[in-house]
Amino acid sequence: MRVAWFAIAIQFACLVTTAQAQSKTTAERLGYPRDAKLLIIHADDLAVAHSEDAASFDALDRHAATSASIMVPCPWLTEVAAYAKAHPDADLGLHLTVTSEWKTYRWGPVESKDKVPSLLDSEGYLWADNDPATKNIKADEAEREIRAQIEKAKAMGIRPTHVDSHMGEFFERPDLLGVYLKVARENKLPFLAALMPDTPKELSSQLSPNDIVLDHVVMAYPEVRAGDWQKFYLDAVKNLKPGLTEFIVHLAHDDAEMQAITTGHPDYGSAWRQRDYDVITSPEFKKALQDNHVILIRWSDIRKLLH
Amino acid sequence: MRVAWFAIAIQFACLVTTAQAQSKTTAERLGYPRDAKLLIIHADDLAVAHSEDAASFDALDRHAATSASIMVPCPWLTEVAAYAKAHPDADLGLHLTVTSEWKTYRWGPVESKDKVPSLLDSEGYLWADNDPATKNIKADEAEREIRAQIEKAKAMGIRPTHVDSHMGEFFERPDLLGVYLKVARENKLPFLAALMPDTPKELSSQLSPNDIVLDHVVMAYPEVRAGDWQKFYLDAVKNLKPGLTEFIVHLAHDDAEMQAITTGHPDYGSAWRQRDYDVITSPEFKKALQDNHVILIRWSDIRKLLH
Repeated sequence: MRVAWFAIAIQFACLVTTAQAQSKTTAERLGYPRDAKLLIIHADDLAVAHSEDAASFDALDRHAATSASIMVPCPWLTEVAAYAKAHPDADLGLHLTVTSEWKTYRWGPVESKDKVPSLLDSEGYLWADNDPATKNIKADEAEREIRAQIEKAKAMGIRPTHVDSHMGEFFERPDLLGVYLKVARENKLPFLAALMPDTPKELSSQLSPNDIVLDHVVMAYPEVRAGDWQKFYLDAVKNLKPGLTEFIVHLAHDDAEMQAITTGHPDYGSAWRQRDYDVITSPEFKKALQDNHVILIRWSDIRKLLH
Repeated sequence: MRVAWFAIAIQFACLVTTAQAQSKTTAERLGYPRDAKLLIIHADDLAVAHSEDAASFDALDRHAATSASIMVPCPWLTEVAAYAKAHPDADLGLHLTVTSEWKTYRWGPVESKDKVPSLLDSEGYLWADNDPATKNIKADEAEREIRAQIEKAKAMGIRPTHVDSHMGEFFERPDLLGVYLKVARENKLPFLAALMPDTPKELSSQLSPNDIVLDHVVMAYPEVRAGDWQKFYLDAVKNLKPGLTEFIVHLAHDDAEMQAITTGHPDYGSAWRQRDYDVITSPEFKKALQDNHVILIRWSDIRKLLH
């Protein structure tokens, strides 16, 4: 199912979807022309590893990434909380996490384990993959866990600007999407969601006209060859359509820690993350954004429209 | 109290203690002469970080360390479990852990959080230091947690040869020592313990003549200058007394991951661990062991005497 989620992302990248019918588009509500090309460059997976944090903080500091989201159950959360406190303007959301996908390195829930037993594998960690997660997770326990994640992040001084879903697990079942939307709306946090022509009705029907939905999502996928990495992103910038797009990137240094965490998994692995970092911090990428009149925005801009 | 534990360790290194009165010494029971100098070279803190694992596995593979112990609540446990399964002869114990001492990177308990609330700080992690741990931990909850750690290690294919205590927390209170001894004895596992002339009676009285107690423990301490690291260990080898000694080392590479974990804490920090690794894998250290007729043994040798 992880592959399926990636496939969905590829579809996101290839298909132009119809924005919610609204009197004003998100671009207009933010004060831009109706046909403006708005882009969020979003770094996933903060707190998963020091390597991830270091590369992502650097990209945020250089304004190469506009936004990022944090995995609250992961061990490096205190490093990210310290960054958040030192950079109160940083656009940091929560990457709501109910999976723990690597082979050498695992994490459990924030909530007490006996309150969320359906989230745990036989070793007491969060499920390693979407398949067993989707099969086993009870929606009320997933809700309990993500509420605990939001509460813990806030207690540690993080002021989240948005939420999204690690490995897309909350898009795997209608009741999980329901929990995700309910908790996001209650917390007045914008959330990652995108409609596609083939989005099942049980999912799309849960979105309301008041929700702000991405028009396009772009993410590199395993078929992109390492040597074509920059071309992939430059083409994506060149082909950007009017509306609200998010580039989802995974930033880390290709070092001993990240290689060990992602061992045996080149897709979204250590070298992959280094390539993402290299491209989005490159002068060529910056120039492409300028040449194509792309307007960089952040989730905190979207959030202002909810208040 | 962490400093106090280190201070105790220094005392260990400086004082010759009286072995338990027995008809035969541990050396004799293991088939060596009564005045043999037996040494365990023990790497602490496996599973705390990939850097720690990589350096420790390398030292074990090269027989530079004879033994090591594992922190079960830490995120890299699966990496260590894989090593244990691939190296069934490796002498691996459990470094029973009820503290989480670093600033950027934290872990919680193995047991469900609501069953061990006295072990947790306000952020839901294990206490960061001995002082609050010793003040707050309830012995029955510590017992529940270390039983869960042993059970989890075994479920993951680790067959522990011994136990010891991370940051010496189980030597901080008589009831904590009681729990440590009870669980070790029930599991027929030898345990780290050493008697000193000033060991409080409430602690020493809990050891029985059947327990195998270390005669000496040596660990580097903050006052050792970086340039004197090798001299410290070579002198310790030269001055080794007859009986059973353990050198406690902390092995890691001085890399980005370990530097980030130990940030702001040079004592037992990243460069410290690299120095420990450099010394115990050096030809000079190996030669000193040979020149001084030191007999390397492992906890599994001790364990055989219990069965």
